[in-house]
Amino acid sequence: MTHKIAILGASGYTGAELVRLIASHPEFEIVALSADRKAGQSMASVFPFLRHLSLPTLQKIDEIDFSKVDLAFCALPHATTQVVVSALPRDLKIVDLSADFRLRDPAEYEKWYGQPHTAVDLQAEAVYGLTEFYRTEIASARLVAGTGCNAATGQFALRPLIETGVIDLDNILIDLKAGVSGAGRSLKENLLHAELSGGTHAYSAGGKHRHLGEFDQEFSKIAGRPVHIQFTPHLLPMNRGILATTYVQGDAATVHATLAARYADEPFLEVLPFATLPSTRDIAGSNFCHIGVIGDRIPGKTIVVAALDNLTKGSSGQAIQNANLMLGVAETTGLMLAPIFP
Amino acid sequence: MTHKIAILGASGYTGAELVRLIASHPEFEIVALSADRKAGQSMASVFPFLRHLSLPTLQKIDEIDFSKVDLAFCALPHATTQVVVSALPRDLKIVDLSADFRLRDPAEYEKWYGQPHTAVDLQAEAVYGLTEFYRTEIASARLVAGTGCNAATGQFALRPLIETGVIDLDNILIDLKAGVSGAGRSLKENLLHAELSGGTHAYSAGGKHRHLGEFDQEFSKIAGRPVHIQFTPHLLPMNRGILATTYVQGDAATVHATLAARYADEPFLEVLPFATLPSTRDIAGSNFCHIGVIGDRIPGKTIVVAALDNLTKGSSGQAIQNANLMLGVAETTGLMLAPIFP
Amino acid sequence: MTHKIAILGASGYTGAELVRLIASHPEFEIVALSADRKAGQSMASVFPFLRHLSLPTLQKIDEIDFSKVDLAFCALPHATTQVVVSALPRDLKIVDLSADFRLRDPAEYEKWYGQPHTAVDLQAEAVYGLTEFYRTEIASARLVAGTGCNAATGQFALRPLIETGVIDLDNILIDLKAGVSGAGRSLKENLLHAELSGGTHAYSAGGKHRHLGEFDQEFSKIAGRPVHIQFTPHLLPMNRGILATTYVQGDAATVHATLAARYADEPFLEVLPFATLPSTRDIAGSNFCHIGVIGDRIPGKTIVVAALDNLTKGSSGQAIQNANLMLGVAETTGLMLAPIFP
Amino acid sequence: MTHKIAILGASGYTGAELVRLIASHPEFEIVALSADRKAGQSMASVFPFLRHLSLPTLQKIDEIDFSKVDLAFCALPHATTQVVVSALPRDLKIVDLSADFRLRDPAEYEKWYGQPHTAVDLQAEAVYGLTEFYRTEIASARLVAGTGCNAATGQFALRPLIETGVIDLDNILIDLKAGVSGAGRSLKENLLHAELSGGTHAYSAGGKHRHLGEFDQEFSKIAGRPVHIQFTPHLLPMNRGILATTYVQGDAATVHATLAARYADEPFLEVLPFATLPSTRDIAGSNFCHIGVIGDRIPGKTIVVAALDNLTKGSSGQAIQNANLMLGVAETTGLMLAPIFP
Repeated sequence: MTHKIAILGASGYTGAELVRLIASHPEFEIVALSADRKAGQSMASVFPFLRHLSLPTLQKIDEIDFSKVDLAFCALPHATTQVVVSALPRDLKIVDLSADFRLRDPAEYEKWYGQPHTAVDLQAEAVYGLTEFYRTEIASARLVAGTGCNAATGQFALRPLIETGVIDLDNILIDLKAGVSGAGRSLKENLLHAELSGGTHAYSAGGKHRHLGEFDQEFSKIAGRPVHIQFTPHLLPMNRGILATTYVQGDAATVHATLAARYADEPFLEVLPFATLPSTRDIAGSNFCHIGVIGDRIPGKTIVVAALDNLTKGSSGQAIQNANLMLGVAETTGLMLAPIFP
Repeated sequence: MTHKIAILGASGYTGAELVRLIASHPEFEIVALSADRKAGQSMASVFPFLRHLSLPTLQKIDEIDFSKVDLAFCALPHATTQVVVSALPRDLKIVDLSADFRLRDPAEYEKWYGQPHTAVDLQAEAVYGLTEFYRTEIASARLVAGTGCNAATGQFALRPLIETGVIDLDNILIDLKAGVSGAGRSLKENLLHAELSGGTHAYSAGGKHRHLGEFDQEFSKIAGRPVHIQFTPHLLPMNRGILATTYVQGDAATVHATLAARYADEPFLEVLPFATLPSTRDIAGSNFCHIGVIGDRIPGKTIVVAALDNLTKGSSGQAIQNANLMLGVAETTGLMLAPIFP
Repeated sequence: MTHKIAILGASGYTGAELVRLIASHPEFEIVALSADRKAGQSMASVFPFLRHLSLPTLQKIDEIDFSKVDLAFCALPHATTQVVVSALPRDLKIVDLSADFRLRDPAEYEKWYGQPHTAVDLQAEAVYGLTEFYRTEIASARLVAGTGCNAATGQFALRPLIETGVIDLDNILIDLKAGVSGAGRSLKENLLHAELSGGTHAYSAGGKHRHLGEFDQEFSKIAGRPVHIQFTPHLLPMNRGILATTYVQGDAATVHATLAARYADEPFLEVLPFATLPSTRDIAGSNFCHIGVIGDRIPGKTIVVAALDNLTKGSSGQAIQNANLMLGVAETTGLMLAPIFP
Repeated sequence: MTHKIAILGASGYTGAELVRLIASHPEFEIVALSADRKAGQSMASVFPFLRHLSLPTLQKIDEIDFSKVDLAFCALPHATTQVVVSALPRDLKIVDLSADFRLRDPAEYEKWYGQPHTAVDLQAEAVYGLTEFYRTEIASARLVAGTGCNAATGQFALRPLIETGVIDLDNILIDLKAGVSGAGRSLKENLLHAELSGGTHAYSAGGKHRHLGEFDQEFSKIAGRPVHIQFTPHLLPMNRGILATTYVQGDAATVHATLAARYADEPFLEVLPFATLPSTRDIAGSNFCHIGVIGDRIPGKTIVVAALDNLTKGSSGQAIQNANLMLGVAETTGLMLAPIFP
């Protein structure tokens, strides 16, 4: 059976990644693509790498006939998203890739995003889109809020450890290395090739990165008590990929066993053999997340490293995984593409 | 129907690319992988990006039971290949990715590769693997010789122009820009990241590059007279992709029309609108080749630019396309993956 | 003796490169830096890599007291430059890095830059800044027009050959590979790391690139007849460097001997041994230009490859070389820095 | 006064970097260069970027007349170094860039390098080459042991904090990001451009990296008690640069003030304004180290980030700084080159 798909915000990287992946999806058909400022253009002119595909012309959102759409992916900026989703039909299934519906508490949203939430009822309705931990809720949800890409990576490394209590909840640190596509297609000096290639720096350091809102919400929820981690992201001269180096206090063998057991049946989460650590190169372009564990020379200190592709498992691949569940399609459909190397 | 596939020389980049692509191929099953020096290892240990796949353990070639193999891809170095293929069963279908069977004339082989050919009978049997121009012969061939990746790119730009005589055969120049994976996984100082990133240089300049043997053979054959082009390749700090900037004498509109007409029904060869030129970024990881044409300000001079991925359309994708034909599978099967961007 | 220097337009890459080089110049002192939109900021805040230097705060141009300036470098956009330079004191020595004063003929300026020239008297006064060919005129000039970076590279490869007539003037082709800093600090999608890294494409192809105005002017002048070349630039994923692969008709040994003889006493132009070709990696960050010559397999066809750093020898280093001449300082002062590798 | 310099092991990156820097040093003259396997070749053939310099031909070490050498830089592999240095004249001043003389305790050397030390007397004589902390001892030393590049970066961030006791000595963690030139010119698959570009991974994780021997020795010495830190290095797709993200427990303002006070008079160590963090791009090619401090959202947790160029301040620049002291030359001579950007 073919499900009819719309992508709102198709002119950004996550929108294009949705199209790339759906092109190999046997049960999805793209029937509408929106990009307000580029309405009227072909997708091939905006993203020439998609020119071999037969795709609808870009439209304005209000030109789309949603009665013929089974599910919409919404890949718009935060804040804009609230307005757009509020105006969509209330029975339309939606997978949102923005930050707007990730945080349960409107006060937390305002704290991290600097403005009040204007669609609090939708926020209450939304299910957090970390598939492997909200599978049942997602399957029956109407509105799923895709996670932050950094937030997904850190949670894959840490959630089973926090749930089972095998690590010290007061000493968790994520030093994260992120590729540049996570910053989107925005025109900023520090994203220029001339400025970004050949070097690295930290950003949003000291507890300012917005994905901390998700970490706080989720880790505190599963711990049953407040959990606040340290989180320092760095920008790296690579286009795709996130490597989260996670420092915890706990027994390394137990940490490894806990993760391996929890993810044993997960099709996309691969726990590597003990003391083998992942590389972002080995998951690029795919929906896989590789996780490695090693003990430190200091007893009781353990390092968990998780790697995924921010555009795939970190956003658009995750979104399709959730859409599969929402539409009753086998969860891995269209997502088993091998990574690309070199 | 599932065809049983062996890959000889699976520890190099083209071998790994074959595995990556076949992982999405619904009618091929990999039953044997060889890598003499790494025999006994798992493919996941040699290429961790393939760890999600269930693959046979690497073997030595003489350990493979070829009676259970329908077709073998041979991704071994030249010279070695002659010896190996000579020892394989004479009824085994083979798609070779090396240079050993590309040149019809043993003297030409010796001239370009510096040693006599030792399997002249096989060389005579082999069909040149440029699918779009040898489709019928390939479909009934037992042994297909994959083209050089640079040779494929240049031929896609030029063959229809030479065949139809719309350009001057004595003034053809290809200035080619190649990504580094074309050099393979060999350990050379100039392939180190520290030496290769951030700069460019020409190599094998002045008519020394071995792919000139293929250009000479093919262009002279279709022209019915000797055709010798200029060809200067450059090494670029990118992993995948070839951009062939081709300078010819002929009317630009006629050149464009000739290419557009010739490739109108080709699933992988896309002629862009007149005066639009391709980027290697738009075909990375895919089996597509984008071709653009623009006229120079000097009347009668025309520029044709072709872009493809050396590992896919330039070698392993082409190889699968040929294997599909040889096994009676629809030609595009397993090869319609979208490019990856960014 | 110390000469007092102003840099107008210090917030772009060529402005910053001037500061970097002057920091090692024993006879220049920077007394004023302008950047209209960033006036009031420190140079360290705009370019943190310069934070170890004691530099004047950025000003608006009209805040500068030019009576205390011996020479001004003008690193502003074209068109703006005409207006600014027209308003400067008529006895102030100026080295301009823009395109505004390169073309002798106002009609040519209008043709290539799409608008009439508004400072025709200054254009007539300006000396073309290709040091090695206008040394005497530059030494006594008040206003020197720095060359285009691509134009400089191509001229170093070709001028002596055109002057001596050892090549066919009707068959000259430059296929050029340029690093991204040549495009400046402008915010464009195709200059983002995510879009530019990992691939290549041609731009301004077919005879549209503005530096052709310089090629036409200079080559026709020295030939004493119209000379129009083909010129196709390509954008490469590297920050610095230009590689001009130049195709000519002429005897390779004669071409090499002509270049070697002409540049034998030039401190910055190095002709490599015959058949050795340059790499942009070997001149990065320096004022050197490496030139190599090789014969093609087709008799009478020769390839000349020139490599330089667009920000140094292609613009800011050249500018300082000219300023040295204008101020009576030894020409190589401050410019003998070794390239940086890797 | 000109001091006569020999460089032993001139065919590696640190050897070439010594030559690059000494080319601008007004009081050093290179009189001998060794590279055993490349003896007889010119430096220009091994490193074409140095071709503008007049340099001695590469020799075997035993061909050098050390009676005419004032100071030798030794840039050879560890273990080899012990043998070579033992055979040099006992009155020759030596700055060693290898790991062989960094550790005071032969047992520690054997533990980290896997073999007994064979020149224990020289090891006892050697002074640890972290200039800013051993200035007096270095000035009168005959043999100085250059630090590890990672070890230097971490110590610049942490030594003043450990000395003054403003941080918890039992909770120090360095997550380090290193460019690839730190791995040298060795031919390894994972250093190829095709394998290294576009991704990142941790290496020597869990307390296995040899530079921990230096951290342990130095931090324990200045603390007067054992100090063992966590240290996880990562390999990044960049050629030069180390970014050490250091996590400590202590008051952020105090940490910043302590570092700022300690380094106020240091010419190469720049403490950035509070809450400003460094980028490796801003120190590339220079002898500067930028250090930034920011407080975490969790009270009492502080992040110190240090950035330097592994080839310059991390090894060859440091070596020249030490040589200046040993020869009575002003310490910054030849080392004030601005970084290169972009």
